[in-house]
Amino acid sequence: MSHPVSPLAPERLPDLPELAGVRFATAETGMRYKGRPDLLLAAFDAGTTVAGVFTQNKVCGHPVTWCRGILPRGTARALVVNAGNANVFRGAEGDAAVRTEAEAAARALSCDVQDVYIASTGVIGQRLDAELIARHLPEMAGRLDPAGMDRAARTIVTTDTFPKAAIRRIEIDGRTVTLAGIAKGSGMIAPNMATMLAFLFTDAAVDAAALQPMLRSAAEQSFNCVTVDSDTSTSDTLLCFATGKAGNAPIRDPEGPFTEALLDLCTDLAIQVAKDGEGAQKLITVTVDGAADAAAARAIAMSIANSPLVKTAVAGEDANWGRVAMAVGKAGQPVDLAALTIAFGGVAVAKDGGAVANLDEAPVARHLKGRDVRIDVTVGRGPGTARVWTCDLTHGYIDINGSYRS
Amino acid sequence: MSHPVSPLAPERLPDLPELAGVRFATAETGMRYKGRPDLLLAAFDAGTTVAGVFTQNKVCGHPVTWCRGILPRGTARALVVNAGNANVFRGAEGDAAVRTEAEAAARALSCDVQDVYIASTGVIGQRLDAELIARHLPEMAGRLDPAGMDRAARTIVTTDTFPKAAIRRIEIDGRTVTLAGIAKGSGMIAPNMATMLAFLFTDAAVDAAALQPMLRSAAEQSFNCVTVDSDTSTSDTLLCFATGKAGNAPIRDPEGPFTEALLDLCTDLAIQVAKDGEGAQKLITVTVDGAADAAAARAIAMSIANSPLVKTAVAGEDANWGRVAMAVGKAGQPVDLAALTIAFGGVAVAKDGGAVANLDEAPVARHLKGRDVRIDVTVGRGPGTARVWTCDLTHGYIDINGSYRS
Repeated sequence: MSHPVSPLAPERLPDLPELAGVRFATAETGMRYKGRPDLLLAAFDAGTTVAGVFTQNKVCGHPVTWCRGILPRGTARALVVNAGNANVFRGAEGDAAVRTEAEAAARALSCDVQDVYIASTGVIGQRLDAELIARHLPEMAGRLDPAGMDRAARTIVTTDTFPKAAIRRIEIDGRTVTLAGIAKGSGMIAPNMATMLAFLFTDAAVDAAALQPMLRSAAEQSFNCVTVDSDTSTSDTLLCFATGKAGNAPIRDPEGPFTEALLDLCTDLAIQVAKDGEGAQKLITVTVDGAADAAAARAIAMSIANSPLVKTAVAGEDANWGRVAMAVGKAGQPVDLAALTIAFGGVAVAKDGGAVANLDEAPVARHLKGRDVRIDVTVGRGPGTARVWTCDLTHGYIDINGSYRS
Repeated sequence: MSHPVSPLAPERLPDLPELAGVRFATAETGMRYKGRPDLLLAAFDAGTTVAGVFTQNKVCGHPVTWCRGILPRGTARALVVNAGNANVFRGAEGDAAVRTEAEAAARALSCDVQDVYIASTGVIGQRLDAELIARHLPEMAGRLDPAGMDRAARTIVTTDTFPKAAIRRIEIDGRTVTLAGIAKGSGMIAPNMATMLAFLFTDAAVDAAALQPMLRSAAEQSFNCVTVDSDTSTSDTLLCFATGKAGNAPIRDPEGPFTEALLDLCTDLAIQVAKDGEGAQKLITVTVDGAADAAAARAIAMSIANSPLVKTAVAGEDANWGRVAMAVGKAGQPVDLAALTIAFGGVAVAKDGGAVANLDEAPVARHLKGRDVRIDVTVGRGPGTARVWTCDLTHGYIDINGSYRS
């Protein structure tokens, strides 16, 4: 199945850098897709630290269980990713498949099996042919290449309509540090395809104990602020690998330019995921302020971003603020109705609890005809704010998800 | 806007009975719809008790605020319902509009203004012309008719594709007691149309203090178990009026045949609402058992019923149990993965935590081609069970909700 490239796609993939200590190889296993790479091996030099954030879905993929188990070590030497089969809900056989992959990679790279990270994306519930993957790994280990991040981004996609990557560069201790990331998916993006995967690579030296809270915080404000259809994948995986080759003193402070760059990189990738949401024609940025606290603001923002009625209204280029008010109210959070203000593209359409009288709808209508729609809501006078991203809900979503699996 | 009648609609409206103590009149105000009645006045004899259940949306309609305020009295003499304008989010003006309607009805029927119930359904955020409604009421009061329940059901609809009504008859104290109900909507059913409204009428004598918990319990197991798009209306209103004319001793016991009949009636109407969900081609009944408790079971069942990916899979007649497993997991409730079983139409497709080996998919495929789809899920060995209803998600939903308001 192939879908037209999202109209929100960037013009091209950025020029991805080589990062000291990171090498890539890709292969075509033919497991599900033909004529395109579907298997990625990334290798990291000794000394690489790692942090990870995973799906909260209680039915989680076997690779997620494996990664959670080894993450406390804080070290990584390899990452194996396959596209086409998510290896979810297969019982003991699914766990054994992960182990087969990890052991094959550890043998090929002469590293500890517990330093091998695994991610799978694709159909849920089908048997993964781990032996097929294991057979490719030794040959791939022989042609690892620092220049392969571009191919890596193209290998991990399933029915994404464009590959996703981003880069940030900062100075630390007088050294240039580079952060680069690749991602795939947008929620559960396609027929039985499950997963948002994102992998970040940096040559910075970062203490593993510090990297984990930094990554969790960045994920909370970026990937966790994106919703396409409210359906949480079983396999969401975000991993950050830091090789330490830039020569800076290991970062331990959770505040600072590295943390800022990490959040910025994650936000860039997260917005690319929203832009490739199923059937997306418009990116929607929802901001909420005046809530009781940040959690309340986020709940209200997500209620708006997940509302099928708000999303279809945006698809129809309709400044239907009544649906936004409905979504604010159903979130179950305290709302000061007398202060409730709703704006599209910066123009208030409802203010202080009622419709704006004699509103000139022309600038609002112009804004809604664009690709980039902003909905800003004030729900009271509290300090809580939130910003989340989603896309509109169109016939494309039904086309993509209403067709038969096989 | 007019949409084809739902393929799930009943062949015809049931023959609605006359109920001693209840009379109806309808009128065409032309407020929004032309050539059809859009205003309902129902009058109740003195001695009628009332119970009500309303939307949990914090942005609730002005009529809901009014009804909540007078409900503790437990008595009712009139009900005024208009279709086309929901009278929501209009500040002090919206409250004044409700008062204008109630006062006009009280004058026309010579009753206490606090015995007049008001409901409005339609666009959110527009000014309601309450004076127009008030001008019609005196004339309507002059032609109240016990035989008008059929017209009442047709008057309260907005873009429903069929009117909804149901009847139950039981014996109490050797007297035949009749319960009849009418309903409209299915969540937020159409462009800016907000509301699920349901009105129940019975000639039973029921103590008001007993009727309220009975109705709340029945709503919890019926209307509150229906979801079309997860969007909670600002104006959901369920009212039950009991005239006492059947001559039974006033019912005070919360258990018994009246409570059973009330639940049965509510369930019938609730399923009709699901069958008229936007774009519905199939009714989906989701049952969950084995959960920790009833609340956990309900949360999981609603997670399945609200999942766009499950609903598009059913639309595509795809036994995509991976998406059901995903929806079970994202509900955030405890799940015993080793016991997780998923069945379509009574045929297990996944059992004890894994796919069923060598499954004959033919009976499952046949089941999914029908109008009535059953998804049964076991999530563990606990005592919690739940049953909810929804419909599939089709292009019809996008057509109905993606078009411009005006």
